[in-house]
Amino acid sequence: MATIQDIADRLGVSKGTVSKALNGAPDVSETLQKTILETAVEMGYTIRKRREKKKLCILTENLEYEEPHQFGYDIILGFRQMAEPAGYEVEIIDVTEKLQKAFSYDVFMLKNGYVGAFVLGFSLNDPWMRDFQTAKTPAVLYDNYIMTNPRMAYVGIDNNEGMELTVSHLKALGHKKIGYLSGALGSHIMQVRHSAFFHAMRQNGLKADPALTGSSYYIIQCLEKQLPRLLEQGATAIVCGHDLLANAVMVQCQQLGLRVPADVSVTGFDDLPMSAYTSPPLTTVRQERTQLGKSGYYALDSLINGITIGTLLLHAKLVVRNSTDKPADRVGGGD
Amino acid sequence: MATIQDIADRLGVSKGTVSKALNGAPDVSETLQKTILETAVEMGYTIRKRREKKKLCILTENLEYEEPHQFGYDIILGFRQMAEPAGYEVEIIDVTEKLQKAFSYDVFMLKNGYVGAFVLGFSLNDPWMRDFQTAKTPAVLYDNYIMTNPRMAYVGIDNNEGMELTVSHLKALGHKKIGYLSGALGSHIMQVRHSAFFHAMRQNGLKADPALTGSSYYIIQCLEKQLPRLLEQGATAIVCGHDLLANAVMVQCQQLGLRVPADVSVTGFDDLPMSAYTSPPLTTVRQERTQLGKSGYYALDSLINGITIGTLLLHAKLVVRNSTDKPADRVGGGD
Repeated sequence: MATIQDIADRLGVSKGTVSKALNGAPDVSETLQKTILETAVEMGYTIRKRREKKKLCILTENLEYEEPHQFGYDIILGFRQMAEPAGYEVEIIDVTEKLQKAFSYDVFMLKNGYVGAFVLGFSLNDPWMRDFQTAKTPAVLYDNYIMTNPRMAYVGIDNNEGMELTVSHLKALGHKKIGYLSGALGSHIMQVRHSAFFHAMRQNGLKADPALTGSSYYIIQCLEKQLPRLLEQGATAIVCGHDLLANAVMVQCQQLGLRVPADVSVTGFDDLPMSAYTSPPLTTVRQERTQLGKSGYYALDSLINGITIGTLLLHAKLVVRNSTDKPADRVGGGD
Repeated sequence: MATIQDIADRLGVSKGTVSKALNGAPDVSETLQKTILETAVEMGYTIRKRREKKKLCILTENLEYEEPHQFGYDIILGFRQMAEPAGYEVEIIDVTEKLQKAFSYDVFMLKNGYVGAFVLGFSLNDPWMRDFQTAKTPAVLYDNYIMTNPRMAYVGIDNNEGMELTVSHLKALGHKKIGYLSGALGSHIMQVRHSAFFHAMRQNGLKADPALTGSSYYIIQCLEKQLPRLLEQGATAIVCGHDLLANAVMVQCQQLGLRVPADVSVTGFDDLPMSAYTSPPLTTVRQERTQLGKSGYYALDSLINGITIGTLLLHAKLVVRNSTDKPADRVGGGD
């Protein structure tokens, strides 16, 4: 492992300057500090903390977590419930694209003295997603998967199982023509759920018709362009890739004069805290958020200790509420 | 939860008889004991141990583990290294088909006072594989996956990653025509690796030709019927689904007058302890066996404590030895 002396030699500066830069002392210029940090990362320098507590960070983007009714709240709580008693300090950082462009992931972590990160809410086009492919500082990614880097792990629920539970529930009620609406397929998890839906349909001996599916980043597009098409083709149930979309689909169906679930069944995915209170309450796949946070900690602690967990998936659980029922004999429905 | 009294009432026997049967007392007939155990399982009765240590079992089939050079040795060691300091007693049971037919899995576990099982070496047609779909006693299955039962977890390495590492290694050496030989596809893990191979070929922009693949339960079939076909069609590298097959393929190639790796490259999967000593030493995908055992314990302890882990995969690691090199310009080789 590289030492402070090695870094000083490489850059032709004094050991003291390197040490100051690594500790963020204000009398080293920002440019020089950045050069020193980048060189340190390149040379494989890692912090050996002398102080008592090691620091972890939770990196969030596009995630609400401040209030108990928000999706991220319990995930972060579960993580801290495990990490803090184990002697870690945990800091939460809302990551912007600007920050990701200013520093590479490894440099950011070294600069701030973090030994590992729990990464929530990143999308495939986030700049650090590329860094994660070769990064040296352990990270656990919620709902994102980086292949072949032993410092990275993926934590989530088993989406295949969630779709299997959803489709077999609808099949048991008597549905055959089942449509699928999804958020944009530019997210890892939307891609996974999309193919999980097709897989579950096949497993249940139902025809997975691409004409009965649609996806868009914009919920309004799903509602105005795709939902009417699915209904016209006789879909008696609409499986949605996430709860916000499912709720919007229920509202739109009702505006089109269709009763949920008497005329059309709707299911969601995630069990957002609001999903028990939609009209009607939503049948959806539950993510055990506190358990996800705890599993995230376990995977991160394992990576830090050299146990190379790559994937940790929790069982999915279908929460059956009132948005699903047997299919109606609508005109154009049935087979 | 059902009590001993509930079971006694249901069967019209005394509480004492139920209690004796649950504790395996010799003065209750075998038939009556079995009826009582089955009723207890059906009614959801679970043991609340008063004694200090809870018992776990490792159920093995078709697995050698007694000696350090055998595949199962380190898996079991890793499991015990975690379980015993945590206060569990661990017993190893070699499971026969006869045992599986005599008792259901849950009845066997209750009868012996085990609170959870780590299951190694089972194949898809083992009778208990069906029991696991609805079993109530937690189990962690190495290399087997049971969907939608929250008491079951799957532990293994990431086979997709292993195949990706293998194929991209061969591609980097210059191979394009890559064949695949596998054990029988009646095993979960052989199915997973088979589709992982096709996936990895596509990911690497190579043509995955079904005519360049073959599988059989009998290694001799792979050698005599399938290997010559792959070589005739110009395969310059043979990826094998497990190390024993890879070793046999290397021996057979050499008997056919081909040098490994000068004329044909061969890779394995598992990194059996013998694979460092084959001729030539085998390039293969390593399963970190001690880590697999530790992960198995973690998943089982989590299930017992209500954290519903479904899948835990370790990162795969390619160990490059001497059985792979750049492709030769053999007659019929190249593209």
